[in-house]
Formats: sequence, C-alpha cells, structure tokens
Amino acid sequence: MEDTTPTLSESVTNSLDPLSAALSAEDQGAVVKLLETIPKEELGRLVDRLSPEEKGSLFELVSPEISASLLETLHFSQGSHLLDGLKPKVVAPILALVDSDDRADYLNEMGSDESAAILDRFEEDVAEDTRQLMAYPDGTAGSCMYREFLSFPQHLTVADILRDLQTNRDAYSAYGIQYAYILGPGKRLSGVLPARNLLFAKPTHAAQEIMLRDPVTVFPETSLEELQQIFEEFNYLGLPVVDTEGKLLGIVDREAPREAQQEAAMEDLLKVQGLMGKEELRSMPLATRSRRRLSWLSINIVLNLISASVIAFFQGTLEAVIALAVFLPIISDMSGCSGNQAVAVSMRELTLGLISPLEFGRVLYKESMIGLLNGTTLGILIGIIAYIWKGNPFLGLVVGVAMALNTLIAVCVGGLVPLLLKAARQDPALASGPILTTITDMCGFMLILGLATFFLPLLT
Amino acid sequence: MEDTTPTLSESVTNSLDPLSAALSAEDQGAVVKLLETIPKEELGRLVDRLSPEEKGSLFELVSPEISASLLETLHFSQGSHLLDGLKPKVVAPILALVDSDDRADYLNEMGSDESAAILDRFEEDVAEDTRQLMAYPDGTAGSCMYREFLSFPQHLTVADILRDLQTNRDAYSAYGIQYAYILGPGKRLSGVLPARNLLFAKPTHAAQEIMLRDPVTVFPETSLEELQQIFEEFNYLGLPVVDTEGKLLGIVDREAPREAQQEAAMEDLLKVQGLMGKEELRSMPLATRSRRRLSWLSINIVLNLISASVIAFFQGTLEAVIALAVFLPIISDMSGCSGNQAVAVSMRELTLGLISPLEFGRVLYKESMIGLLNGTTLGILIGIIAYIWKGNPFLGLVVGVAMALNTLIAVCVGGLVPLLLKAARQDPALASGPILTTITDMCGFMLILGLATFFLPLLT
Repeated sequence: MEDTTPTLSESVTNSLDPLSAALSAEDQGAVVKLLETIPKEELGRLVDRLSPEEKGSLFELVSPEISASLLETLHFSQGSHLLDGLKPKVVAPILALVDSDDRADYLNEMGSDESAAILDRFEEDVAEDTRQLMAYPDGTAGSCMYREFLSFPQHLTVADILRDLQTNRDAYSAYGIQYAYILGPGKRLSGVLPARNLLFAKPTHAAQEIMLRDPVTVFPETSLEELQQIFEEFNYLGLPVVDTEGKLLGIVDREAPREAQQEAAMEDLLKVQGLMGKEELRSMPLATRSRRRLSWLSINIVLNLISASVIAFFQGTLEAVIALAVFLPIISDMSGCSGNQAVAVSMRELTLGLISPLEFGRVLYKESMIGLLNGTTLGILIGIIAYIWKGNPFLGLVVGVAMALNTLIAVCVGGLVPLLLKAARQDPALASGPILTTITDMCGFMLILGLATFFLPLLT
Repeated sequence: MEDTTPTLSESVTNSLDPLSAALSAEDQGAVVKLLETIPKEELGRLVDRLSPEEKGSLFELVSPEISASLLETLHFSQGSHLLDGLKPKVVAPILALVDSDDRADYLNEMGSDESAAILDRFEEDVAEDTRQLMAYPDGTAGSCMYREFLSFPQHLTVADILRDLQTNRDAYSAYGIQYAYILGPGKRLSGVLPARNLLFAKPTHAAQEIMLRDPVTVFPETSLEELQQIFEEFNYLGLPVVDTEGKLLGIVDREAPREAQQEAAMEDLLKVQGLMGKEELRSMPLATRSRRRLSWLSINIVLNLISASVIAFFQGTLEAVIALAVFLPIISDMSGCSGNQAVAVSMRELTLGLISPLEFGRVLYKESMIGLLNGTTLGILIGIIAYIWKGNPFLGLVVGVAMALNTLIAVCVGGLVPLLLKAARQDPALASGPILTTITDMCGFMLILGLATFFLPLLT
C-alpha cells in the first residue's frame, strides 16, 4: 500500500490535466488514446475528478462502444451519476451496447421522462425487451436476469450445435457457455445442456438425449432470498427464468443474489451511519449532498429534543447536584454502545437466517443475561469513579445503579428492535439506531435523575 | 415473508425435538434420516439451537461424509464454532473430505495444538498440502486458492484429454471444467485451455496448439486487492497461482476476492457497531460474548470520561445556567451523527478506490462546504428552540453557534479520520467511531460551555 497508493494518486493527477485539455479542445483522438493508456482500475478515480462539464462532454466525444466499455469499468452509482444530465441521443446508443440487465438498472435509476426518451431511441425489440426487464421490481429474479444466453431446438444434434457454435463464435463472445438451453415446442424450455455433457457426448446424439430434463427453473417474481437458497441447494452456475407457460425469459447468474446481498450489506453500513437513499460520492453537487444528509439529521434532532426534555423536567435535581450533568452524556453514550452491539448481533443473525423475526423470547433471554453481566460490571466501574470523584457513596450508588439498569434495557431493546422492524417489514439498518438511542437516552436520563431526586437529601 | 418466516421457525421447532431425542439415544440411523429430510436452508438454524453436548455428539455419530456435507451448508463461523471442542480423531476425517481451501481456513481458526493434532491424522500428502495452504496469510491469493483442478501434460491431444475426462468423470466431479491447466517440462504451467477451445477443436489437435499461451498468473503472496483488479481487467473465471519457478500451486476463483470483500463489508458493519474479533452468535457461551463486548465498552467508557471531564471543568457555568445541561447531550449526539455521515462517505470512497488515503485536502475542502451549510442550518434551528424555550436570545446564540461550529468540526474530523487510519495502516471501521465522538464531544462541550462562560452576564 505504502508505495502504490501515492503513485496511483500521482498517475491520476498526471492523466487528469491532459484529459481535461483534450476534452475542452474536443480532440476525440487524444481522449480515446488517453483512455486506452490509463489502467482500468484508475479510470474510476480519474472520471470522479472531472468537472461536471467535462464529464458531460466525455461521452459525447467518444464512440458509444468506448463509452459502453468505460461504463462497465465504473461502479454502478458512479456510472449512473455520469449518465445523469446527458442528452437521450447521447445515452441511448451507449446503453444499447450494455448488457441487458445493466441497461435496465441504469434506466430505472433515471427519471421516467428521461428513460422514456431513451427507450424511444432503441430499436423496437431492444426497447420492448428493456421495458420488460425494467418492470420487475428490485429484489426479484427478473430484476437481475439477462438475455444473452445460448438456446437451441431440442432436435439438433451435438454436431449441429458444435457447428453453430463455431459459425457464430464472434456473436456468442459475450455469452456464457456453461449451459445451452434446449427449447421444445412453442419455444418452451425443455432442458438444460451443460458444457460438460456437450464435451462428453457423441456427435450424433440429439440435444434432447443428453440434456438435463425437468430443469430447476424460477419465475421473474422469485425473490433473491429464494434464489440464494436454490443456489445453495443446487450447485448451478445459472438458473433459467421462465414465465407461467414455461417460455424462457432469461438467465440469472449464481453471482446475482450474492452480489445483491453484498450491495445490501454495504447499504446497511451506510444507513447505520446515517446516509439514506442514493449513494453519496464527493463528486456529487454540494446541494444534493447537504440535503440528503440533513434529512437524516433533522429526524435525529427531533428525537434528541424529545429525550433531552427529560433533563429539562428534572432541572431542579440537576441544579441541586450539578455533578450529575457530567454523567448524563456518559450514560447516553455508553447505553448507545451497548445497545448497538446487540443490534449488530440481531442483524447478523437475521441475515444468516439463524433467527426468525418472531423469536422475541430467545433474544430477550440471551440479551438479558449479557445485560445483567455487562451492566453490573459497567455500573460498579462508573459508580466507583463517581464515588471517588465527589467522595459521596450515594452519588456512586445512583450513577452505578442507573448505568447498570440502563445497560440491561439497552441490550434488550437493541436485540429486539431489528426483529420488530423486520417483522413489521421495515428496514432494520435504517431505523434501529435512532429508535434505540431515543429509548435508551430517555430511560437513562430518567433513571439517573429519578434516582437522584429520590435520594436527593443524601446527595447534597 | 409473512407466510414463510413463522413456518420456517415452526419446522425447526418440529425437527429439533426428534433430532435431540435421536442424538441422546445415539440412534445413528434416525439422525441421518432427519438430516436428510430437513431443507438445507434450515439446517443452520437447527444446528444453532442444539445444546453444546448435542452439537458435540452430532459429528461423532454420523459418518465423516455426512458431517462434511453438513459443514458445507453452514456459515463459516457457525461451522468453526461447531468443530470447536471436538476430538481430533472426530474432526480429522471430516476435514479430510472438505475442499482444500476451507480445510485450511477451519484449521487456521483453531488453536495450534488442536490443528497440529488434526494434521497428524491426515495422510502425509494431504497434511503437507494443508500445511502449505495454512501458511499463507489472510488477504492473499494463497489463503483462498484450492487444489482441485484439471491439469494435463502439453503433448496430449484433444482426444486424449476427452478420453481422460470420460474415464475419470466421477473423480473430477468436484472439479471445475471451465479451464484445464496445461503443464510443460518440470510440471511448470505452460498454458490454459478453456472448455470453449476444447469444444471448438479437432480431436487430433495437441493441447499446446489450442491452449492460451503466457497465461495471466498470480503468486500466493498476491493481495486480494490486486486479485480483484486483475479479475476486473480480465474476464477470467479463475486464475492459476504459481510459485517463482512457474510451478502450478492452485487456483483462485473469480468469486474469492469478491467474497472476501463481502465478508470484510459485513465485518466492518459489526465493528462500527462495536463487535470486535470473531463473530458473535447467540449460541456461543455467555462468558465469551460478555467478555468480547466488554473489551469494546471499556475502551469507550475511558474515552467518555475524558470528554465528560470538560463538563466538570465548566461546572460553575453550568450551575449558573442550568438550561445548558439539556443541550450537552444534544450537541454530543448530533455531532456524532454528522461526523458519522462523513466517516461513511470516506470509507465508501476508500473501498471504491475513488480516493487515496493521502488526499486530505480534497476531503477537507468538500466536507467543510457541507459542514458550513449543514452546521448553519442545524445551528439556527437549535438556537431558535433554545431562545423560545428560555426567552433569552443570548442563550439561543450560544447554543446555535456552538452547534454550527461543532458540526463543521465533526464533518471535517469524520471525513479525515478514516483516511488517517488507513494511511497509518490501521482499521478505519474499528477505530473511526470512538475517535470521532471523543473529539467532537470534547470540542462540543468546550464550545458551548466556553461560549456560555464568556457571555455569562448576558445569560443569567
């Protein structure tokens, strides 16, 4: 890392100026040449640093083929940000060259006027295909299937198929060869022919003799969770997606549900840290970035005011024992930490399928054990510190008991909130944190200030 | 989800009792039968719910073949937890049947005495192979390569190869057929033969005529980041790993670096939420879970005491204007939120390679813009609330200015901390949060109480 990282950044800086210059001179040849010399793994960072105008003119200047292959090297959110604001007549020929599943994803990310204008410019069959792919909701097999697959009528022989493969070698260059899909009457899927079987068969065999019959199929509506389970059960590299009549619509790769899961894990991380909606990159406009972040912050400030109102309620006690003010943020922060640990375990167990969203009892039992143990430890620790600081054992008792009880509450609430949200079909990653801290802050402030009010004569 | 989730949990409950009964009766036939009837996707949850004794007797009772296939359906951390505490004579025959890369991972997860005892029970060549795989550090190609690949001497013809494939069909059943690796003199790798080429070639062709020459290779020491970049650049399904003499050591799959990255994203999520070290599942012993969580909490309580000491320092001001105590936790929490958003963007941009760990200037510039905008907004909001609540415009001013400035500080610190940690080769996921909140809490408390001390005559 030590050596490569600065070099990477230097080489971006070195290519950025010539690229900017070539773009503003509209020197197509120079731009293409520069794009070829820059290593693929640096293209993302380089494009990220171009000004909005330069980004716009980049795709307008080079051929759709080059733009399409550039798009393939970029991360999805970067690519879709780059297409944003380009004219439909520039975007359409580029997206026409992209894999069918990516094409649908990019169009779905745009406004409906924009995507309609681009669809109008496709050839009729491509447009129709794309419209169908776009219609499948996120999280379904339909949303991540592609149409670039090999298919043959079932009466063809191995020799016929091999001849077709050799003849159309170039046309098939983007197609997987792991499986050929064998079609019966009415173009319905009748079997799957693995490359393995093709390799082992005699030339005179008909496809229907050596294909796998009754292949496992899914519908476009099949959820990615089910898909993942099917791929875990069967060791296939891809699965055919069919309609209710058994007609082959497309293929989903083994990697698709896993990639979607990985994307989801990354999104969870962003959401837990307070970034909602589309991904934020620092190359996006300031106003967008500020607005998106503020939408999350404004929810939090309201929740904070609610929990802080508990403090206002106990103002009298606080005035009498000002030392308590020091422990309020500590109780708040430590309960948040303890609770978030339980949130993380629950989210992980939900992801791994080790727990059902309705198993409240198990979580409550397991977390309350931890809560008692860790709460007692932390309570004794902070109690002793409070006692030593002010020399008042009762202050130590109040602070320690409040910390212990609130840790218990925090881990139980933290363990349960993701389950409750999941059972209510809400997103645990987004809402667990704020719900948890609001509850634990209110309880924590109430416990420490309530106990202090009760023991007030002993504290002053 | 509504329908399947409760059913899943019911079916686990329904199979758990018979399985427990069969295990305690040591009824091997019944256990095997039950394991066969339970859907694969439920096995994980079912095994999770067995008592420690039952888990122990499960693998002792069934054949190594069944244990090995059970192990393959479980998540790694669950599987390795399950092997923990079993006798070497039980574990050895099971791991001997597992893929070579998983075998090495499981052994690496154990204590060195335990893994040595298991290695001693393997056949000599398996043990030697495994020891070599185990020696490669995490995050390298060596750590995720496997040895189950097809290889042929370069003088063989297509007909020879096809004959060998047909003869050894069963032995090769676990092997990928995407590529056959062609060996020259001294068993050095001389080329790669894709299944595609094998499909298109004449039977009389020699392997060396139709193979890809000068194949892209990696070393066992190649990092997963480099591997990922190579897979992004070249569209191969697998890459051969060779030693310095060009001898073929193993294969890494296209999925390997991506899976490692996904694992890393999940680990990041757990770390950000305060779970370090090995993954926690609720089926693990209470003492282990409590200890792991406390190690994180005890660091946080020390950091909290440091930042709370700022409040103790300004006790006099707080006593004079007790209303300030209400705003201390709000400032602390809101700055944490704002800062964590910047942390999330930096971590994401580092992952995507859009930023180098040394580009402090760019982050500082971009974040300070957001900080000014969002800080001003939040400051005005909270200032007005404080003013309305107490009817004192100067209280509003103090609270608002403190919030605005601390938001600016929080986003700049939040943006920079992951870069600094990365540049210092530390783990941004683990340490960014605590460092951020300690700095922003201290600054926040200092700002609001410092400003209040300065304007004290106007506030009382």
